[in-house]
Amino acid sequence: YSLKQIFLLSKMTLEAIKFENGRLKLLDQLQLPFTTSYIDIETIQDGWEAINKMKVRGAPAIAISGVLTIAVELNKRSFDSIDQIKTFTHESLDYLVTSRPTAVNMADAAHKMKDFCLNLEKKTSDKNEYKKQLIEKMKSMLDEDVATNKSMGRFGAADILKRLEDNEKACILTHCNTGSLATGGYGTALGVIRSLMEMGKLEHCFCTETRPYNQGSRLTAYELVFEKIPSTLICDSMVGLLLARKKISAIVVGADRVVANGDTANKIGTYQLAILAKYHNVPFYVAVPSTTIDLSKKDGSEIVIEERPSKEMTHVNNVRIVAEGINCWNPCFDVTPADLITGGLVTEFGVFKPDELESKIKKILKI
Amino acid sequence: YSLKQIFLLSKMTLEAIKFENGRLKLLDQLQLPFTTSYIDIETIQDGWEAINKMKVRGAPAIAISGVLTIAVELNKRSFDSIDQIKTFTHESLDYLVTSRPTAVNMADAAHKMKDFCLNLEKKTSDKNEYKKQLIEKMKSMLDEDVATNKSMGRFGAADILKRLEDNEKACILTHCNTGSLATGGYGTALGVIRSLMEMGKLEHCFCTETRPYNQGSRLTAYELVFEKIPSTLICDSMVGLLLARKKISAIVVGADRVVANGDTANKIGTYQLAILAKYHNVPFYVAVPSTTIDLSKKDGSEIVIEERPSKEMTHVNNVRIVAEGINCWNPCFDVTPADLITGGLVTEFGVFKPDELESKIKKILKI
Repeated sequence: YSLKQIFLLSKMTLEAIKFENGRLKLLDQLQLPFTTSYIDIETIQDGWEAINKMKVRGAPAIAISGVLTIAVELNKRSFDSIDQIKTFTHESLDYLVTSRPTAVNMADAAHKMKDFCLNLEKKTSDKNEYKKQLIEKMKSMLDEDVATNKSMGRFGAADILKRLEDNEKACILTHCNTGSLATGGYGTALGVIRSLMEMGKLEHCFCTETRPYNQGSRLTAYELVFEKIPSTLICDSMVGLLLARKKISAIVVGADRVVANGDTANKIGTYQLAILAKYHNVPFYVAVPSTTIDLSKKDGSEIVIEERPSKEMTHVNNVRIVAEGINCWNPCFDVTPADLITGGLVTEFGVFKPDELESKIKKILKI
Repeated sequence: YSLKQIFLLSKMTLEAIKFENGRLKLLDQLQLPFTTSYIDIETIQDGWEAINKMKVRGAPAIAISGVLTIAVELNKRSFDSIDQIKTFTHESLDYLVTSRPTAVNMADAAHKMKDFCLNLEKKTSDKNEYKKQLIEKMKSMLDEDVATNKSMGRFGAADILKRLEDNEKACILTHCNTGSLATGGYGTALGVIRSLMEMGKLEHCFCTETRPYNQGSRLTAYELVFEKIPSTLICDSMVGLLLARKKISAIVVGADRVVANGDTANKIGTYQLAILAKYHNVPFYVAVPSTTIDLSKKDGSEIVIEERPSKEMTHVNNVRIVAEGINCWNPCFDVTPADLITGGLVTEFGVFKPDELESKIKKILKI
């Protein structure tokens, strides 16, 4: 993009998920930042593959895209009965949950949609009304996600600012992509940075490359330039020196899954960022909507770490970049133990210390 | 390379620096691991550029290549007097020292060659004999480097094995490239790994990609495959998880400069490896020939960190891989404080704790 193009783009909102007139389009994030192209999602299989092949990514965006995939098919098909709609919806949800094993949001969304189906049955016996309301509910996930993220952004920004001098602005380091491209449109960790920016309280944002898939250098950098946020890209290997040499106010990351004790599964590299933050006395925050919190698991030892194909490490744009014949280890996530989350867990309800997370969430959600 | 090609290659020794009949050829490491091509070094300027553009790299290899570059020109030119030879040699040395500011070995080699010139003057007044002996001295640097590395390899391997159970084999993580490609032919940190392998005491070697220049995935991986060392490549972001999940016996890295108190300048990312090693109670070793130790500097605060062009981060094989318009920070080195070097400094004279390094080296070298 030229500066002029970027300026023009900045008048628009970055939309990774478009749902209009029953049609779903997903921005193909594998083509970013050089090509902005949308894929039409017409079947459940299309949605499953877009998620599995990481054309759409980020825990919230995966769930929203998955659910809207079902809305597309519900919209097109005709059904004989409410039961048939319900069976189709349930089976599709279960299938979509298998597209990425680590992201809890899809499983959570599946659970909620099943509950919604059950309640809806009690309210209407008209199959058309049932289908209409079910699709409406699916569509509302997108708006609710933005509202949730804005709330998280405000809480997170306020907590970081509390630690600074009166007129000091914040310098934030983030990892992976947690912005408009990973969510319904505002971002989790990047939402906190966006909030600081809107408040005139952001000095600078650093983002890591996030090897091997380069979500930082491809996606976060793209969003930061797009939003005119003062920012600098670093390699994953430069975090130690950055924390030693520059005054970083906080590290803020997203999460793929937070369990009851606060242990956090997130993009590979998060765990070592937390260790480096602790060593340098920099507060470490995890920005996580309550839908990403999985109280059914006690601690991080219960989280299965997905390993992905070597090709993600060995190739860039289908060009081999590493020596022929070498073995690769490509874990996609790691687990950051709760005691390293020294800043706190930023939710839409407030910022919680890991050891108070479970009780606070249970109280707020009345579960 | 096919497996058969690799098998055939493995019968040969990997030679990054060839000096035969007064001609110098350097393996162009920017083309590795896919193209094995040598550059002819015919002038001082050729040598300066090969070092500056990182076609040759690794502190010892830089010094050897630099000095042999002068040997090439000495060999070709005719001189009127010993004084003229000396002036040409001195000026060339001073110029070559400017090719990479962080590598101390070139400066050290320049110092030693100047001393050698001075002594040689006392021994001969025949300009042809003077030139011949000077060139011989320059050539001997290559053999001495291999001998030094083999000694370091044995000391380092023995120190690591002391920490293990009787029949336990070592699992080592290394960073950047410190093998045949970075030295005269055996390696510093990779020399320790090679020694363990020769002793039948190596379980596995892990190497990091080493962004942004990928010396690990391009060069170390190439050497490990070439040498049939059981090995696995990881991204720089995976070190934390590796140390948490796999039993790693030690991290061993090289150095671009070690100062009097043991503080160590080395490839960006080394500092955070040392922090992660300490967090996981894994011993951290720096393999460093005495020529890389700079006792003229008291501590790491006196080391200037070179920053390199953004393009190293933004492009791979001249193809842009990061979003347009983003700023980059590309420090080439970092400084690991001595207290994080928990295993020790592996030299050709033995393994020393950082706080005993200065006295031991002064005693051994009688300085």
